[in-house]
Amino acid sequence: MSELALIERIASRTALHPGTALGIGDDAAILDLGGPAVVTHDMLVEGVHFRRETCDARDLGAKAVAVNLSDLAAMGVVAVAVVVGLGLPPGFVQSGMADELSAGIEEMASAFAVTVAGGDVTSAATLVIGITAIGRPQPGVPPVRRSGGREGDLLCVTGRLGASAAGLALLEHPALEARHPRRDALIGAHLRPEPRLDAGRALARAGVQAMMDLSDGLLLDAARLGRASGLRARIELDRVPVADGVGAVAAALGRDAAVMATTGGEDYELLAAVPPRLLDAARATLAIPLTVVGTLGAGEPGAELCDAGGGIVTVDSPGWEHDV
Amino acid sequence: MSELALIERIASRTALHPGTALGIGDDAAILDLGGPAVVTHDMLVEGVHFRRETCDARDLGAKAVAVNLSDLAAMGVVAVAVVVGLGLPPGFVQSGMADELSAGIEEMASAFAVTVAGGDVTSAATLVIGITAIGRPQPGVPPVRRSGGREGDLLCVTGRLGASAAGLALLEHPALEARHPRRDALIGAHLRPEPRLDAGRALARAGVQAMMDLSDGLLLDAARLGRASGLRARIELDRVPVADGVGAVAAALGRDAAVMATTGGEDYELLAAVPPRLLDAARATLAIPLTVVGTLGAGEPGAELCDAGGGIVTVDSPGWEHDV
Repeated sequence: MSELALIERIASRTALHPGTALGIGDDAAILDLGGPAVVTHDMLVEGVHFRRETCDARDLGAKAVAVNLSDLAAMGVVAVAVVVGLGLPPGFVQSGMADELSAGIEEMASAFAVTVAGGDVTSAATLVIGITAIGRPQPGVPPVRRSGGREGDLLCVTGRLGASAAGLALLEHPALEARHPRRDALIGAHLRPEPRLDAGRALARAGVQAMMDLSDGLLLDAARLGRASGLRARIELDRVPVADGVGAVAAALGRDAAVMATTGGEDYELLAAVPPRLLDAARATLAIPLTVVGTLGAGEPGAELCDAGGGIVTVDSPGWEHDV
Repeated sequence: MSELALIERIASRTALHPGTALGIGDDAAILDLGGPAVVTHDMLVEGVHFRRETCDARDLGAKAVAVNLSDLAAMGVVAVAVVVGLGLPPGFVQSGMADELSAGIEEMASAFAVTVAGGDVTSAATLVIGITAIGRPQPGVPPVRRSGGREGDLLCVTGRLGASAAGLALLEHPALEARHPRRDALIGAHLRPEPRLDAGRALARAGVQAMMDLSDGLLLDAARLGRASGLRARIELDRVPVADGVGAVAAALGRDAAVMATTGGEDYELLAAVPPRLLDAARATLAIPLTVVGTLGAGEPGAELCDAGGGIVTVDSPGWEHDV
């Protein structure tokens, strides 16, 4: 298969969505953004971010797109296009896995009306997926940064947390998996997270001034938002909304469900710093729950986890840290 | 080193150039393009595109940026930013090679006033560099595609060809290298190609309607431009401008210098289809030579190589094909 054939095949199944003036086949793609561009990039590497044993190529392609769209969701912008770089290991094309990977990329892009605008395919020792996602701000609504939090803001999360971590635990402990009633939903949350693009745009329109997506666990990500805003995030463990089914997995592992939901990575829900006066309006614009889990306040920039009485809760591992 | 530290270090040495509203440290970067975006991506993988023995990390970083900027040059647009994905093998940070790589990325970006707007760093079994380059069209000048060639257009190349192929041959045959008088220039052309951004913008302003960069050899790339335009590219071997020093390397290898210049990859010069009436004006706007090497005409879409009498010249290997 020639270098561009696979990318062309991915693109041929994806319509050119609005905002894409020229797709595959030239030196570059042209995106008709009408103004500023919002750009993010993630690289997923086999053996680091995933193992081929625990996720098939189709899910992997979908997830690689989803995690990048999640970054655009966190900026409150409109997702326009993704550009895909693939490093494929020996035999990957011949086994049909490249087709599966491309189908997953196309499915997730199409589900959010995002164009696969181009890319590059090459050989590699292990599977590498680099995705660049490009968006544009909503008219009249600036992109939402992490640094805009103010003292007194309520820290809120969309949806419920911990499902991805529980799904990963089920995949890694097959003995647990067979007997778990919420097996498919939890594993699905891990393998095919849904970027919260609608919620991100709605929160931006509602006037939220600081937002990010939860990729490495609420506690660690809240510390990042806190540092970016020069404030201390206080997360109340009892208020963290735990996804259905996480409790049983946590119990089987001898762990606390709320801690699992607070420190488990890859939720891809949104964390927003919401001024109290905007909370009701923000909730009213969302089709999914928005739960207050803490506050932003004065103190050493970062985050801490508290119990109902205000005491500090320490956890062994605050979340996912990717060191190189 | 934490995940973002390296990207932050690269960015800290690079000023935010015009067109970048928000750089490193948020979920996405914001580029103030004022209109359409032009986007390209290339992934370079150790063992496929380079061997660490024949290029150091600093050159590699510079080249990875250069080849992407070359794609923007071929569209005739203004380069604004690059987004960098790095997969780093074990020991790469500790040995100082990550610093060298980042220095090379920063040098090439800065040389063309391009911002390193963000990225992702992770571990990998072998070194992987994915670069996404983002540009904006010149005011009133649409991006130049490959598909705009017309019958009767003159096929022209900027600069001189073959230096990169000869430089690679010198690196691969150390016995040749020691005694070659143009050693540094040829190896430099291979290790640090210069993207022809100025020339690309000038040719676009001059009204050139089809253009691409030469990454895989003139003959193969001309076939691509021919196919994109639905025409046949006829390249005249005797007219191909051969870079200084290529002759001696070709002779030592028992090869023909003009064929080496016509089929050697990675020149990163520009191939433009120029209507005859525009040729003088196009040349007048350029600081580098623009040489007519053939014509676009009717016939099976693709390319052919001709001698001075119009006879077809066949070559063993028409250029670089990257199969996966």
